[in-house]
Amino acid sequence: MTKVRRSDRLIDMTRYLLERPHTLVPLTYFSKRYDSAKSSISEDLAIVRRVFANRQTGILETVPGAAGGVRFIPTIGEEEAEAFITEMSHRLSETDRLLPGGYVYLSDLLGTPDVLRQIGRLIATQYLDAKVDAVMTVATKGIPIAQSVSQYLDVPFVIVRRDSKITEGSTVSVNYVSASSARIEKMELSKRSLPAGSHVLIVDDFMKGGGTVNGMRSLIKEFDAELVGISVFAEGNFSGDRMVTDYTSLIRVDEVDTKANTLHAIAGNYLAQNQDRLHALKK
Amino acid sequence: MTKVRRSDRLIDMTRYLLERPHTLVPLTYFSKRYDSAKSSISEDLAIVRRVFANRQTGILETVPGAAGGVRFIPTIGEEEAEAFITEMSHRLSETDRLLPGGYVYLSDLLGTPDVLRQIGRLIATQYLDAKVDAVMTVATKGIPIAQSVSQYLDVPFVIVRRDSKITEGSTVSVNYVSASSARIEKMELSKRSLPAGSHVLIVDDFMKGGGTVNGMRSLIKEFDAELVGISVFAEGNFSGDRMVTDYTSLIRVDEVDTKANTLHAIAGNYLAQNQDRLHALKK
Repeated sequence: MTKVRRSDRLIDMTRYLLERPHTLVPLTYFSKRYDSAKSSISEDLAIVRRVFANRQTGILETVPGAAGGVRFIPTIGEEEAEAFITEMSHRLSETDRLLPGGYVYLSDLLGTPDVLRQIGRLIATQYLDAKVDAVMTVATKGIPIAQSVSQYLDVPFVIVRRDSKITEGSTVSVNYVSASSARIEKMELSKRSLPAGSHVLIVDDFMKGGGTVNGMRSLIKEFDAELVGISVFAEGNFSGDRMVTDYTSLIRVDEVDTKANTLHAIAGNYLAQNQDRLHALKK
Repeated sequence: MTKVRRSDRLIDMTRYLLERPHTLVPLTYFSKRYDSAKSSISEDLAIVRRVFANRQTGILETVPGAAGGVRFIPTIGEEEAEAFITEMSHRLSETDRLLPGGYVYLSDLLGTPDVLRQIGRLIATQYLDAKVDAVMTVATKGIPIAQSVSQYLDVPFVIVRRDSKITEGSTVSVNYVSASSARIEKMELSKRSLPAGSHVLIVDDFMKGGGTVNGMRSLIKEFDAELVGISVFAEGNFSGDRMVTDYTSLIRVDEVDTKANTLHAIAGNYLAQNQDRLHALKK
C-alpha cells in the first residue's frame, strides 16, 4: 500500500463517511487505509468537518479517547428544509391529486429518489440525537419513507402488514380502529423482526385520523418496545378527534374541495417543531 | 461568494456527485458554485475520476461539448461483489430462515441499509449502460430493492399491488398464474404511474416459479412499455418449469431440507453473467 495524497484521501474519506452515517470510524482505520500519519488524518477530518458544516451536509462529530474516532451525522439546512417543504406543498396542490375519500395521490413523489432523499434527511435531522433502534412503518406506501430515514439514521426498518402473508414466519398481531372508517382492522409484524426494548420511530406517508399510527403504537407495546416519535410525510384534513396528537408532519393538506376536485397543501408542523434545532445547526 | 480552495471543492464535489448518480452536471455549475476557473474544476474532476476508479466507487464520465459536463455512474468492484454475495449466501443459510412453502425469511436483511446499498449497487452496475426509465416491483418485499436500485440509477420506481387499495386512483390490472400454487391471481398498477414507452427494469426479492415476475411482464405490455431486464435478490428451489428464464439472481437457494428445517444458499447467476463487465471496470 502506497501513501495516499491528501486530495485523494479527502475524496475517498468523504464517500466513506457519507455511506456510513452515525457510524463511529476510528482514526486508525483511515490511517491504515491511506497509509498516512494520524496527524494528517486529523487535519483531513478538520477540513471535511468544516466543508460539511458550511454546506450543511451534516455534522462530523469527534469522539475522543482510545475507543474514539469520527461519526458523520447527516442533517439538512434550514433554507433547504424550507425550500423542500414549499416545493412539496406546491406539488401536492397540483390538480388531479385528490382521490376518493380525501386521500392524495403520492406514488409519483414517493417513488422519486430525490424526494425520498430529502424526506429522509428532514426526519433524520429531527431525531439526530434521539436513541432510535428501528424505524417502523406499515405497508405499502410508508416503506420508501422508512427506508430513506433508516438509511440516514443507519438503523434497520421493519414493515407492519395489514394482510396475512405466509412468508413472514410467526407474527404478532393487533386490532386497531380506523378513525376514518370506524372499522376494526388487523395489523401484524413478524415476531423476530423487533427485539424487546427497541426504541422505535414510526413513520408513514399519510395520516388522517391516526388509526393506523395508533395501531403501530399498540404493536410497539406488544413487542415491549418503546416509541420514540411519529413522523408522517403528509397529514390530511380530518374533522373528528385525532387518535394521535403528538406527531410531526412535513406537509398538511389544508383545504379539500371534492366538487372542484382540488386541494390546497401547506407546510406541516415540522418547521415550527424543529426551528431551534435547524437554527442551531446553522451556527 | 469567495473562491473556494481545492480541498474544499473536492469534498463538496464528491458529495454532490454521489448524491446525483447518472445526472449530467455541467462544468459551469461547479465553476459558479466554487467561484473557480473551469480549468481548475477540470483538474479537480480528474482527481475525483482517478480516486473513484481506484476505489471502485464508480465511473466519472466526461461528456464533451457545449452541452457537456460530467456524470457519475456508480458501480461495484469485482471483489466487493463477490464478497457481498458470499456473505449473503452464508446469511441465507443460517438456521431458522426456512419458512413454510419453501420461502425464506429475508425481512431482516432487506430492512438493513448496508445490505440494500450493496444490492442496489450490484443491480445498477449490471444496467449501467442500459436505458432504464423506471424500476418496477410488486408490494411488499420487493420495494426496498426497487428503491435502492432506483437511487443508484436515478430513475423512479413503481409499485405493483396485489390488493386493491382505494388510494391509488385508476389502475390497470392483469391476471397471472402463480407457478407455485397454480392459482389465478390479480395484480394492478396505478394508471398514471408509468408512461407508455417506458423502459422498465423488474426487480423482486424472491423468485420461485416466476409467476409474479411473469405477471409484471404482462403489466408492462398493458402499459405499452418495454422490459429491460429482470433481477431478483434470491431465486428459490423450483422443481417445475419456470415461467421466466431470462433473469439475474444474486443468490440461489440450492438445497432445502424441510425436515431438518435447513437450507443451503449459493451464489446466483449474477457473477457469471456480469463477469466481463466487472472485469472491464477493474481495468
